Amino acid sequence: MQTIELHTQSRPSTVLCGAGALDAAGEYLAGKDAFVVTDSNVYRLYKERIAEVFPAARVCVVPAGERHKNKNTLFRILDEMLDARLRRNSFVAALGGGVIGDMAGLAAALYMRGTRLIQIPTTLLAQVDSSVGGKTAVDYRGVKNVLGAFYQPERVFCDPLFFRTLPPREIRCGLGEVIKTAVLDPATGDLLEAGKDRLRDLGFLHELACSCIRFKAKVVEADERETTGLRKCLNLGHTTGHALELLCGRRSHGEYVLIGMWLESFIAEEEGVCTPAYAAHVRSLVALAEPRIPAFPNAEEGLRFALLDKKNTESGQVSLVLPKARGEYAELSLPAERYRGYLCRLQGGNA
Amino acid sequence: MQTIELHTQSRPSTVLCGAGALDAAGEYLAGKDAFVVTDSNVYRLYKERIAEVFPAARVCVVPAGERHKNKNTLFRILDEMLDARLRRNSFVAALGGGVIGDMAGLAAALYMRGTRLIQIPTTLLAQVDSSVGGKTAVDYRGVKNVLGAFYQPERVFCDPLFFRTLPPREIRCGLGEVIKTAVLDPATGDLLEAGKDRLRDLGFLHELACSCIRFKAKVVEADERETTGLRKCLNLGHTTGHALELLCGRRSHGEYVLIGMWLESFIAEEEGVCTPAYAAHVRSLVALAEPRIPAFPNAEEGLRFALLDKKNTESGQVSLVLPKARGEYAELSLPAERYRGYLCRLQGGNA
Repeated sequence: MQTIELHTQSRPSTVLCGAGALDAAGEYLAGKDAFVVTDSNVYRLYKERIAEVFPAARVCVVPAGERHKNKNTLFRILDEMLDARLRRNSFVAALGGGVIGDMAGLAAALYMRGTRLIQIPTTLLAQVDSSVGGKTAVDYRGVKNVLGAFYQPERVFCDPLFFRTLPPREIRCGLGEVIKTAVLDPATGDLLEAGKDRLRDLGFLHELACSCIRFKAKVVEADERETTGLRKCLNLGHTTGHALELLCGRRSHGEYVLIGMWLESFIAEEEGVCTPAYAAHVRSLVALAEPRIPAFPNAEEGLRFALLDKKNTESGQVSLVLPKARGEYAELSLPAERYRGYLCRLQGGNA
Repeated sequence: MQTIELHTQSRPSTVLCGAGALDAAGEYLAGKDAFVVTDSNVYRLYKERIAEVFPAARVCVVPAGERHKNKNTLFRILDEMLDARLRRNSFVAALGGGVIGDMAGLAAALYMRGTRLIQIPTTLLAQVDSSVGGKTAVDYRGVKNVLGAFYQPERVFCDPLFFRTLPPREIRCGLGEVIKTAVLDPATGDLLEAGKDRLRDLGFLHELACSCIRFKAKVVEADERETTGLRKCLNLGHTTGHALELLCGRRSHGEYVLIGMWLESFIAEEEGVCTPAYAAHVRSLVALAEPRIPAFPNAEEGLRFALLDKKNTESGQVSLVLPKARGEYAELSLPAERYRGYLCRLQGGNA
């Protein structure tokens, strides 16, 4: 088991990574007042295991899927927390993918101004990305993650056991964030390149996940609330990714991030942020998980959603985090019209 | 103008106290993207002044009154923030009493995981209590402040100008928290005793407010999130006060705090926490603002609400913060039945 410590301004957080992490979570909550939030998919697969590991916990099961990451589901969780008469020192355990982590995390942040929180991410994506760092949120009125809080879990338990039941598409989705990290972090990049033929090996995916978490922990420690700018690097590919996700919504977050990175590598190249060779290298990494970039015909709507992005600080401008060189990134604000021009490149995909 | 600095873990906060503070708020937001949240009462009285001080700001006016401190009003504010396309670096200015401060503060905390926030409290209660320290919340399903966040305003502007339009009942309400502070803080206690005949003098009320804010700032600095226990002292009288507020809801928060302190002084005395003389002294301070304690016949319901209190950490126990001696307080957990017995004392008021 690997232990990664995060020392943030608000509170310390410890990530435990490895086989046995789920049992460690059970031990951590033994004898405590605990409330497990999970979704219908995870519950179907792990109902007995949950009962075994958290014998005394109340379990709140919400419908699975990104489209349920909204105000209604948030208040359903809060209602069940109230019904269970949770107290401020009770534990909320978010057991599921990123949607569960974000919503249960926000419920834990709001309930009595904050109950104790642990994250038990069950997808590759949630392990490498959303469970670490304390970002919680729901989507609202068509804007992704527009209502939320920074709220650190006191423990994160990342168990590779859950990878066995992930559909291939979920793995591809997680690889989106892994590949993003590989572009930002040379250590993860080298690991990925060395093992690029082993991307179906669950043990190797776990190694990649640990490397991504170590990198993310360093970034979050340095800039918990995205105030100094450093944490923004994690948004590489995300401006376009989020916009397309809002526009279409049929693929997964990680896949949209991959598509976003693909498009933004061209922007980086044409805006002179990186060399053509480096942009091609980024696209070759994207292709490891997403060899075929689909077509997005509606640039106008894509732009509309990109303009709603939280990262934009000036109106009429779209903020991007672009690849620059090995382990380097750059921020760039583009006028809306110019960005729309780049979006048109997606009209034909890479077919 | 007095300046009181708060250095908390999450972010620094500065309180400006004195005539001219409202204009200073206007200067602070000049040229910024600003969104003012206020209520229908404040807007009726200060509409022109608001337009003058914040000429470029959007103004969101919500219905006045404690019963509107709920999820619906919170989402109405968030909807208007979205409609106004506020960004993460936009400013939310909460201009009103404690209800507005709590709701606009929570909206600012949630929107894009946190926009910039300033508080401009317009009541004595909000100036001495809720605007300083970063507690934000709404009531939900009959439980006071059960959904909220700790979110520090970057500036608080306390202008005594607003006292001129406060009804006497609002002043009495603010005196509830002033008297609570006087019990906890010898400096405020001495100031209050020396001027107890000048409680209708608005200048003296402003002096008292500054003294209370200085005390609260020290407490919040030492324990921003109520984790070390110190900040709990501010809940003196509040367990009973909140329970009665939920039970009846016709008086104001400060009046319920006074009634709570009155009852809890007897509990402190009978549980051996303070001497009978000190308990009588606390009641004499309460009597400065609330000479007649009304009758609350329904102890059973009062207990039910007290058991919902966030401060309770064990089920079946009611947590109280009781006066102990000059500048000292003590925490006590009472079994529910025992606390119910004390509540019965309120059946006849102090008539």
